[in-house]
Amino acid sequence: MKILAATLLVLELHVPEPGQDLAAALLAQWPSYAAYVVSFATIGIIWVNHHALFAHVRQVDRTLLFLNLLLLMVVSLIPFPTAILGRFVSAEADSHVAAAIYGVLMILMSLAFTALWRHVTQDVRLLGRHLDPRRARQESALFSAGLAGYVLGVVVAFVSAPLSLLIYGLVALFYVFPWLPEAPAVEYSLE
Amino acid sequence: MKILAATLLVLELHVPEPGQDLAAALLAQWPSYAAYVVSFATIGIIWVNHHALFAHVRQVDRTLLFLNLLLLMVVSLIPFPTAILGRFVSAEADSHVAAAIYGVLMILMSLAFTALWRHVTQDVRLLGRHLDPRRARQESALFSAGLAGYVLGVVVAFVSAPLSLLIYGLVALFYVFPWLPEAPAVEYSLE
Amino acid sequence: MKILAATLLVLELHVPEPGQDLAAALLAQWPSYAAYVVSFATIGIIWVNHHALFAHVRQVDRTLLFLNLLLLMVVSLIPFPTAILGRFVSAEADSHVAAAIYGVLMILMSLAFTALWRHVTQDVRLLGRHLDPRRARQESALFSAGLAGYVLGVVVAFVSAPLSLLIYGLVALFYVFPWLPEAPAVEYSLE
Amino acid sequence: MKILAATLLVLELHVPEPGQDLAAALLAQWPSYAAYVVSFATIGIIWVNHHALFAHVRQVDRTLLFLNLLLLMVVSLIPFPTAILGRFVSAEADSHVAAAIYGVLMILMSLAFTALWRHVTQDVRLLGRHLDPRRARQESALFSAGLAGYVLGVVVAFVSAPLSLLIYGLVALFYVFPWLPEAPAVEYSLE
Repeated sequence: MKILAATLLVLELHVPEPGQDLAAALLAQWPSYAAYVVSFATIGIIWVNHHALFAHVRQVDRTLLFLNLLLLMVVSLIPFPTAILGRFVSAEADSHVAAAIYGVLMILMSLAFTALWRHVTQDVRLLGRHLDPRRARQESALFSAGLAGYVLGVVVAFVSAPLSLLIYGLVALFYVFPWLPEAPAVEYSLE
Repeated sequence: MKILAATLLVLELHVPEPGQDLAAALLAQWPSYAAYVVSFATIGIIWVNHHALFAHVRQVDRTLLFLNLLLLMVVSLIPFPTAILGRFVSAEADSHVAAAIYGVLMILMSLAFTALWRHVTQDVRLLGRHLDPRRARQESALFSAGLAGYVLGVVVAFVSAPLSLLIYGLVALFYVFPWLPEAPAVEYSLE
Repeated sequence: MKILAATLLVLELHVPEPGQDLAAALLAQWPSYAAYVVSFATIGIIWVNHHALFAHVRQVDRTLLFLNLLLLMVVSLIPFPTAILGRFVSAEADSHVAAAIYGVLMILMSLAFTALWRHVTQDVRLLGRHLDPRRARQESALFSAGLAGYVLGVVVAFVSAPLSLLIYGLVALFYVFPWLPEAPAVEYSLE
Repeated sequence: MKILAATLLVLELHVPEPGQDLAAALLAQWPSYAAYVVSFATIGIIWVNHHALFAHVRQVDRTLLFLNLLLLMVVSLIPFPTAILGRFVSAEADSHVAAAIYGVLMILMSLAFTALWRHVTQDVRLLGRHLDPRRARQESALFSAGLAGYVLGVVVAFVSAPLSLLIYGLVALFYVFPWLPEAPAVEYSLE
C-alpha cells in the first residue's frame, strides 16, 4: 500500500507544452527528477523496513492499527512536498522554505515509524518470533541516525536547498547499506 | 483497495506556482490540509472496521458483493468533496454548501456500511466464527453514533463550515478510542 | 488491480474554481456523476465476474496471461471515455460522438472478457473445479446480452447521448440481478 | 504493484475542452493512444516476467530487495516519457528527442531487470525450485534481444519518431510469443 504513494510521484512530473524546446524544458526540471529519486528511495526504504518490522508481528492490537494508519497518512503526503521541492528548489528565497518543509515531513515520518516500532517491540504479546533485545536497540539507533539526518537537512535548508536535498538523499542511501548483520531471512512479497 | 482512495487524496493538494510567496501560499491552504487529515482518518477507520467485519465472514454471496461495491463506490468518491471542502471552506456563502456536501457523502457512506454490516450479521450462513449477538448490537450502536455525528455536521454546516469540518474530524477521532472491550484479535494485513 | 481504474475515476471529476456559484457549478456537472456511477458499476461488475471466472482456474498458461493483460488494458482505459462522456454529454453534436466512443470501449471490453472466458472454459486443463458445460453456456448467453446492450447503446448514441448513457447503466444494472441459480460459493477477497 | 503504473497511464490522456470538434481533437491525439498501448503492453510484460522470475525465488536478501526497488523506480517513471512521446511524436525536431528519451528509459528498465535476474539466478541460495541453467541462459538471451531492440529504437528516433515508437511496440509484441518451450506452470495471481 505505502509503495503506492511512490507510484503516484510520477504524476507530479510536468510534461512540457508543445512549442517549448523539449530538451531544454526537460533539463530545466532536473530538481524534480532529483526529488523523485529521493522520495521514491525514501518510500521504498520505509516499505522494506515496514516489511521487516511486521515479519516479527504475530498479533495486531488497536493501537498498532492506528499507529500504522498515522504512518500511512504521513507517507501518503510525500508526493506533495516532493512536488513543492522540485518546483522551488532553484527559486530564490522560497527554495529554503521548500527544502525545510520536505525535511519536516521526513521528521514526522521518522517519528511515526519510531512510535510504531516502539509499540511493537515493547509489547511482547505482539511479537510472534522473539526479537533479540540487543538487535532491537541497534535498529533503534539506526532510526535515530536517520532522524538526525533529517534534522540536519532542515537546518541546512536555510543555507542551500540543493545541499539539503542531497542530505535527504544521503539518508536514504545510508539505509541501503547493511549496517547490521543480516537478520534471519523472511518471506517478502515483492509485488 | 479502499485505502487507495486515501492515497489519492494527496493529488488534490495544490502546489503553488513559482512567483507566489511559498510560505504564505501554503499557509493559506490550511483548510485543504485539515480536510486531508479528516478524510484520510475517515477512510482509514472504514478500512479498519471493514477488516474487522470481514474477519467474521466465511462465505460471500451475491448481495454481499454488490453491497461491498456500493460502499467502495461511495468511499472512492471521498477525494472529490474533500477537494471541494478544502477549496471553499473559507469562502463566504459557498463554504456552507461545501461542508454540507461533504457531510452528505459521509452519511451515504455510513448507510452503505450499515447495510453491509446488517446483511453480514443477519445471515448466519455468512458468519464463519460465531459473532456474539450482544456485541453485534453494541457495534451497531457505535455506527448510529457516527451517523448522528454526520447529520449534526450537515446541520452545523449552514452555521459554520470550519465548525462542521471539526465535527467530521471528531467523528473520526471518536472511533479511534476503544469503546467496546477489545474483540478477539484477528490477523490483519497491514499493507 | 482492475478495481483500481474505478478508484481513479474520481480524479476526472472537476472541482469548481472559487468565485463560481458552487451549488450551480456542481449541479451543472450532473452528467459527470452519472458517468462516474455507470463506469464504477461496470468496472465493479467486471471485477466480480473476473473473480467468479478465476475461481474455476487452476492453471495459468501464457495465452491466458496475455488475454488477461488485454482485458486490463481496455478496463484501465475506462476513465478516459468516462471523462469525455461526462464533459460532452450535454454538448450539441459532440454528445453523440462522446456516447458512441464510450460504447465502443464497452464493446471492446466485452469482447476481451469473452475471449478470456472462452479460452478458460474450452481448455479442460485450465479448469480446476469442473465447470458444468450447461452453466458455461448460460453464462456465455449472459455475456452476449451485455454485448447486445452496448451495441444498442452505440446506435442510440446518434439519437440521444443521455439515453445512450442510460442504456449503458441498465446493462450494468442487468448484471446485478441473479439470472442464474447461485453458483457454489467461493472465497472472494473483498479488499 | 508494478501494474499500477500501467493503470496510471490513462491519466496522461488529454480530455478535449468543450468547444473543440471532439472527433477531430481525439483523432489528432492518435500518438498518445499508440504510446498508451506500447507502454501498457511493456509494463504488462515486465509484470508477467517478474512473476515468472519470482516463482523461482524462495529466499529474499537485502540486495534483491533494493534491485527490485530500483526496477520499480524505473517502471513507475514510464507514464512520464509516455506522456512526452504522445505529445511530441508529431512535433518537428522535438519528436526525435521525445522518442529517444522513451527508449533510454526502456534501456534503463532492461538493465534493472537484467541485474535483478542475474542476482537471482547466480545465487543458488535464493532459488527455491532448481532453475535449469540452460533455460536460464536462453532467457538471458531473450533479455538481450529486448535490450538490442530498445537501442535500435533510440538510434531510429533520430530518423523518425513514429518508426521508433513502432520498434518499441514490436519489442513488446516479440515477448508475447513463446520463444522458449513453456516453463512448468506456476500459480499466478491474476488480480
